[in-house]
Amino acid sequence: MGSVVALAGQIGGAKLADGLRRLRGGQLTVIVNTGDDYETMGLAVSPDIDTMLYTLSGIADPQRGWEPVEETYSFFDMLKRLGGPDRIPLGDRSMAMQLLRAEGLRQERRLTEITLEFCHALGINDARVLPMSDDPVRTQFITEAGDVRYHEYFSDLQCEPVVKGFFYAGADRAGLSEEIINAMYAPDLEAVVICPTNPYHTIRPILEIEGMRELLKSRGVPIIAVTPIVGGNALRGSAGKIMRELGHEVSARSVALEYYQLIDGFVIDHEDEAQVEGIRASGFDVVAAPTFMRTMEDRANLAQAVLDFAATIRAGRAAEAAG
Amino acid sequence: MGSVVALAGQIGGAKLADGLRRLRGGQLTVIVNTGDDYETMGLAVSPDIDTMLYTLSGIADPQRGWEPVEETYSFFDMLKRLGGPDRIPLGDRSMAMQLLRAEGLRQERRLTEITLEFCHALGINDARVLPMSDDPVRTQFITEAGDVRYHEYFSDLQCEPVVKGFFYAGADRAGLSEEIINAMYAPDLEAVVICPTNPYHTIRPILEIEGMRELLKSRGVPIIAVTPIVGGNALRGSAGKIMRELGHEVSARSVALEYYQLIDGFVIDHEDEAQVEGIRASGFDVVAAPTFMRTMEDRANLAQAVLDFAATIRAGRAAEAAG
Repeated sequence: MGSVVALAGQIGGAKLADGLRRLRGGQLTVIVNTGDDYETMGLAVSPDIDTMLYTLSGIADPQRGWEPVEETYSFFDMLKRLGGPDRIPLGDRSMAMQLLRAEGLRQERRLTEITLEFCHALGINDARVLPMSDDPVRTQFITEAGDVRYHEYFSDLQCEPVVKGFFYAGADRAGLSEEIINAMYAPDLEAVVICPTNPYHTIRPILEIEGMRELLKSRGVPIIAVTPIVGGNALRGSAGKIMRELGHEVSARSVALEYYQLIDGFVIDHEDEAQVEGIRASGFDVVAAPTFMRTMEDRANLAQAVLDFAATIRAGRAAEAAG
Repeated sequence: MGSVVALAGQIGGAKLADGLRRLRGGQLTVIVNTGDDYETMGLAVSPDIDTMLYTLSGIADPQRGWEPVEETYSFFDMLKRLGGPDRIPLGDRSMAMQLLRAEGLRQERRLTEITLEFCHALGINDARVLPMSDDPVRTQFITEAGDVRYHEYFSDLQCEPVVKGFFYAGADRAGLSEEIINAMYAPDLEAVVICPTNPYHTIRPILEIEGMRELLKSRGVPIIAVTPIVGGNALRGSAGKIMRELGHEVSARSVALEYYQLIDGFVIDHEDEAQVEGIRASGFDVVAAPTFMRTMEDRANLAQAVLDFAATIRAGRAAEAAG
């Protein structure tokens, strides 16, 4: 069995990464969006890395997957009492990574190093979690209420303003880490998986890193994306709303088109099986699978479907080359 | 009733300050030691200010007076799991002031301003808590194990190394804040009280601030110190051990001599009443009072004894001047 590189962020991304880890223990590298990272009161918050690490280490809260289970808010209660910033709740346990990360960055350590140390400390020994870059990239939501960051849009603005577009400040100057290049050049690489999550502000920032698209394409292994949209609804989050506001149809097909000229295969939900032919007509290979991940088993099942799909594409290519 | 300035730090100091506040609500200024302040992971820890604020706002833990009641340690548990610094426990609630203070200092705000805002937020409206200076002073314990800071001596080294002396780095370049000068020049000032706490690393750093001794003496109001030593034992902490190691007798008299040429009166415990004459012979006016502060009433009673003593000294001087 070969190695796999996954592009991920948010809870859907973390869940599929967890499924892939279960099937490809020790051979999984996850490249995580850091475009939503921000600093507050000397803390370095990396929402997608934190969600990934809690999920892969098995300590994510089952309902609130972006924080560790049994999170407490003693710090935040006192902070509010003292008149400190009270918009975004800071959990006591969550602050440990945020504070240690900030301390590491102040000491000019690379985010990749810091993240790999967290993996090790949390007992994540069968997957490598890598930030998409060691350089800062800051995704901006261009909205009717002005340009805002992810945490401002979601927490302060409650996802209300109409989104007109995005830009990824710093992406064109951000470098690819040695660890990402090594993972992509692993001799046994068999697939690149784009996890089911928001294409605009979770996957796109990763793809915008200078040289990333070329690197992903360069190895010629199948690149498979999984839809975060089922039956016209985003499984979680605000992807549906944003798609509508950007003028797109809310559908798996719209997500697939975001990855046009990049992916080789697209996974939709069984519920949308009727769309298979339509999406295939856009130039993608398409399969349907159960994309809801309620249980741990669901995660592994979806991962298996994705890897099987990649194997089929590889086999087809091999047959073509042989024929 | 006039105003009072108290010099304080640690738990004994905070308790007497609280007693004075009860008697002189609105007319008390407490100057607090900041020589033990330190930074860790971007947090600005001010142990003596924190103890004072928790005590005066009534939220100090009854047993562990340096932290708020019902403190939790979720952050610290996760920090240890992540391999972070694990010597000094960081409480979830306690971190709120430490983080906000650090944030304020990074924004180049004065420690005095930040502290007064905390007072206000915590509902301490009848006492002004002022750091001894807005400039950093770093008390060093000169020990057989090298020069260490307070938190290292107490937490890391468990008070074990023999203490040979102290120095107060930065004190000679530290300035007196306008707020301290104003408090000392309040027209109704009636006494300066040196609270019962370690004379070497809690009161001495305050006195070492450039110009502080002169300022305290300049107004000519009685300066009264209260012993932290009763019957040859420090009421709390390591004062006794340090006194022995510095070659002093462990007694109230040794403390009084630390304040030689500064104080006008010295308060010892009733238990040490036999020493009154001996200490008086060193040139101090001396009274005995109950110095143990177990209850809130004890705090106010000791405060009353101190203020009565100051009144007696003022009356004696007035009589002398009139005679």
